[in-house]
Formats: sequence, C-alpha cells, structure tokens
Amino acid sequence: MREKILALLKEKSPSFVSGAEMAGRLSVSRTAVWKNVNLLQADGYRIERSPRLGYRLQEVPDLLYPLEFAGDLETKIIAAERRLIHYHRQVDSTAEVIKKLAEKGAPEGTIVLAEEQTGGRGRMGRSWYSPFAGGIWLHILLRPPLTPAQTPLLTLLASVAVTKAIRRLLPHVEAGIKWPNDVLVRGRKVCGILTELKAEPDIIHYVITGIGINVNIDAGKFRTELKDTATSLYLENKNNRVSRQKLTAFVLEEMDTFYRQYLSAGSLPVIEEWKKYSITLGEEVTIKNVLDVFWGKAVDVDSSGALVVEGKNGLRRHFQAGEVTLRGTGR
Amino acid sequence: MREKILALLKEKSPSFVSGAEMAGRLSVSRTAVWKNVNLLQADGYRIERSPRLGYRLQEVPDLLYPLEFAGDLETKIIAAERRLIHYHRQVDSTAEVIKKLAEKGAPEGTIVLAEEQTGGRGRMGRSWYSPFAGGIWLHILLRPPLTPAQTPLLTLLASVAVTKAIRRLLPHVEAGIKWPNDVLVRGRKVCGILTELKAEPDIIHYVITGIGINVNIDAGKFRTELKDTATSLYLENKNNRVSRQKLTAFVLEEMDTFYRQYLSAGSLPVIEEWKKYSITLGEEVTIKNVLDVFWGKAVDVDSSGALVVEGKNGLRRHFQAGEVTLRGTGR
Repeated sequence: MREKILALLKEKSPSFVSGAEMAGRLSVSRTAVWKNVNLLQADGYRIERSPRLGYRLQEVPDLLYPLEFAGDLETKIIAAERRLIHYHRQVDSTAEVIKKLAEKGAPEGTIVLAEEQTGGRGRMGRSWYSPFAGGIWLHILLRPPLTPAQTPLLTLLASVAVTKAIRRLLPHVEAGIKWPNDVLVRGRKVCGILTELKAEPDIIHYVITGIGINVNIDAGKFRTELKDTATSLYLENKNNRVSRQKLTAFVLEEMDTFYRQYLSAGSLPVIEEWKKYSITLGEEVTIKNVLDVFWGKAVDVDSSGALVVEGKNGLRRHFQAGEVTLRGTGR
Repeated sequence: MREKILALLKEKSPSFVSGAEMAGRLSVSRTAVWKNVNLLQADGYRIERSPRLGYRLQEVPDLLYPLEFAGDLETKIIAAERRLIHYHRQVDSTAEVIKKLAEKGAPEGTIVLAEEQTGGRGRMGRSWYSPFAGGIWLHILLRPPLTPAQTPLLTLLASVAVTKAIRRLLPHVEAGIKWPNDVLVRGRKVCGILTELKAEPDIIHYVITGIGINVNIDAGKFRTELKDTATSLYLENKNNRVSRQKLTAFVLEEMDTFYRQYLSAGSLPVIEEWKKYSITLGEEVTIKNVLDVFWGKAVDVDSSGALVVEGKNGLRRHFQAGEVTLRGTGR
C-alpha cells in the first residue's frame, strides 16, 4: 500500500493530489491514505500537506523501494519485471529469504533486497554488518544451464559487475578485485560476494549470489576488527553520500549484461574483464586451502576461473579454492 | 521400542525370554512388550509364544532394521555408528528426509533407509517405483572437502560401489555401468543413482547420494513403460529372492571403501574400477545435452569423470553432462 501511495504522489508531482482522489483510486479509506503518508514521512519522504489541496511530494530519500530504482532498469533477465523484485525493510538475511523463494520455484532473475539485515552473513558464516540504508544488501537467483564446475565463473562475473557499477557511478574511486571476488578500494573491502548453489553433478538447479556493498557507512560504525580491512563508498568518496538507488540499478544492469554474455559467449570475455580489474595478478601471494599453503606469484586466471600461481621453482599450480593474501600486507 | 524388543529376542535366541524379563530390562509394561511382539510378527518375524516360557525368535524376515544389517558392518565413515542410521518403514522420499537432516547439521556418513517410498524420485523428477521391501531405497550424506567440480566423480564412485556389491553377493549376475552411473544387467536398469549437492563455488557443503536398487521385484510389478528397460536382481537371479540385508551391508561397505580411497588417493583408482565395469566404452553412442546431439564412439572417461566421445572426423569431445544411448538399441 505504501508503494501504491508513493506511486500516485510521484505521478502527480510536482502537483498536489487530494486524499479523496487517492482513496478513490486505491479503494481504501482516507484514513488509510493518511496513515501511509505518515509512514512515508517517517521513511524520510518530504511530503507537503495542505488541508485544501491534499499531498505533494517534495523530496525522496535514498531508499530502495522498487519504484525508486527499477523504473528505468534496462535488464532482460535480472529484476526484469516488477514481480521479480522482493523488497523488505528488514530481514534476518536476504540469503534465507531467497532460498525459500528458490525452493518454491521462483523464476530466474528473482532478487531480494533489504534496507537492513539483522543476521547478515558473509563467507564461513562470519557476520556481515548490514545497517539500515547503509548499503546494498542484495541476493540474485539464477538458474543457468551450466554444470557445478562452471560456478566459479559466476562468482568472478559478479565481482566484475559490481566493480564496473561502482566505477560507472564514481569514476574516481578505484575499485579493484582480489581473487576470486572481493571488491576492494585502496586495499580495503567495500563489497563481499557469496555464491551458493544447489545442483546435481551435471546440472545446476539454482545459484544464489549475495552481494553486500558498503555504501553510506561512516568509519566509526565498523567494528574494531574491521577498521583496517573494510571501507565504504561514502568514505572513499571524500565523505559524500552515494546514491544507493543509482548503484543498485547499475549493479543489476551490469550483472544482467555479463550474465547474458557468459551464457552466449562463454567464459573468456568475463575473464578478460576480470583481469582488467584484478589487483591480485602480478603480485606475490600466499594461498591457503584445505590441503596446504603455497607461496608464489599470481600469474594468471585460467578458463575455469582458477588462480594460477607460479612457485619459486617455476612450478605453476591452478587453485580452484583458497584464501589469498598479498605478501607483506597481511591482506 | 520394536528394535529393542528385537535386540533382546536375538540376544536370547534360540532360547526363550519371558515377558517379565523383557518388561523389566526395558522398563515398560508387559502389555507394551506383548504389543511390540505383535508388531514384529506382523512384519514377518516368526516368534514362538509360550505361556510359561515367554517368547522365542524362530525366523527373521528380510527387513532392514539396522540390527539386521549393521551389526557386523565394517565401515569407518558411512553408517559407522548406530546413530548415523535413520531407518523408516515408509517415507515420502529418502531424499526429503536426508535433506532435512543435512540442513540441521547431521554428520557425514548419515544414511536414511526406508522399506517403502510413496513418492520416490529419480532423475528429472521422474517417479521411482519403491514398493515395501522390494528394494534398497537409500540415501547417504557426505561432506567431502572437495569443490563442486569434483562431484561427478562421487557419482561414478557410487555406481562402482553398487556394481561391486551386487557382484560380491551374486557373482553370476553381470552388473555393468552405463555412463555416468546407471547400473544395468543384460541392458536393463537395476539401480539408479541420484546425487545432489549444496555448495559454494569452491567448497561443497554437503552431497546426498540416493541409491535405488530393484531387488525382489517381480516382472509383473513394473509399470508397462518400464517392462523393457528395468529389471530386478530377483529376475536376474532366476526368480530367487535376494537378501536385501546382505546387499545393503555390501553397498555401504563398498561405498565406504571407495569414498575413503578417493579422499586419500584421488580419482584415478575409482576411474580404473569404473572402466572395468563400463558397458559404454568402446560402443557407438549418441550423446544429447542441453546444447546439441553428438554421435561417435565412447573412447574414454577423463580424470574429471567426463565421457570422451570420438566423432567420425576423429574429433574428441569431453562431455561432463548428457544422456547417452547406445546406437541401434535405443537404450
């Protein structure tokens, strides 16, 4: 209902629209209109009230009501229709919400967005700080006709899409990718990506890709242990607020473009883009996986998305999994 | 409770055990003992009753009470402890039961067995005929430290384990494997294997492997459309019943052995075994996948488990996925 009231206010803006007209068009009472206008005001919408003329929208806050970012969205699969967008003010985690939708058969391109997550999670079950309107807390559901072996590419792809979206909005912010898919600015993490899949050995049932971007979070808000390793676009933009609405639209558009390209043209274009933004290639790294720890120079990413590391003796190893740290930085 | 009564009867067999003693040891009423003995008799256990001496076990039916197959089981991971075995008389599907256990954090090696599935499923959501005590309807939960790309090997591994178990019990029944993992006898399917996984791109959370083996099913029981394509061990054993208890133990033991070998020694030993039992290699095949249809000779299985097919022009293609039919047979 709140979204419908908002749609009417936007339609009439910058003119007034009377409570009676809104009540009539939405088949609700004038009290219901009044209550929902109050809620919008509480959200930060500036709405002028006139006893004679009714209501007039004056200023829009940076919230992710679908109306605010999806109107001009140019996507063909991801969030391509309003019914694919599941918007929440607060959820435990977008991962849990989208998993339920996926199990119930939700179509490819479904997205779940929340202004706030109370139990947001990153890799290894670590908690992910997701304050109200502080970032983009997003999950995307895909059903690609691929094998599980091809999912590492989807992860690289998401990091490329986010990096491109950030650079499109903030050209002076040098976002780069640490293998496989952390997006960093000046060595600090601004975006985490988490991909989970359900599959048979030869076919994916679905993939859910979680994207958490720190947008308007002030330095003081990060927990002590994140102070040196995390950042936000606000901080990297000289303490100027960044439009979550625009960034959400850009992320969805870039994801849509690269995903469709991957399905039609295979992994090479994605890998080429990934290499452009990589901050891992060419560096001396330590890579740690289940089996061992290996030191060497990160020299390439192969067609499966594996990191190729060359040891001192010239031996090259391909890593499908592992935690990379740049040597000497501890990161 | 039924299992505890049975355990006592077995312990005392071939002697009698009095109702009073059983009631005392299990801290239940003599009526409860009497009721559970009735239920065991309804299951097919022959139990002699004497007003003076009590009860005596005389004959055991071929049911899969853990007591009946797991007592001497020599496994280290799979069903290695009684608490890992979840036995049901009837379930909708063992897949659903084990998924719930997996999501709740059940440990590696957990198995779910049912005498009957009312909604058993095969690949592509096809229904799988699973009548009471007619076969082995089993799911195994594994949590291997592997990437999703390595799961095809787990599927080949399961087919090798089942084939070996059948040959161990019935040396004259020539079970063989059609790529990737159907177990056939004389060109007819006797076992289907279905693997599902939940994972991140670089690490498996869990794999559940479903194994459905047609054991004591009479020809007349198969649906018309299965008559030419399915068989049972009973039919292949000259209409002699086959012990589901022994076969279950053998399947679990072989799975356990090959799984531990795969974790310690990698894929080669599994692939060597698979090749021994293959009925696909050396044959002219048609392979159909999402993208196209390809004809050629199945010449090899590579280290990832992919089928290598050589076309007329000598071109070799590696298939990770696809439906294979032997040319000329339609199967």
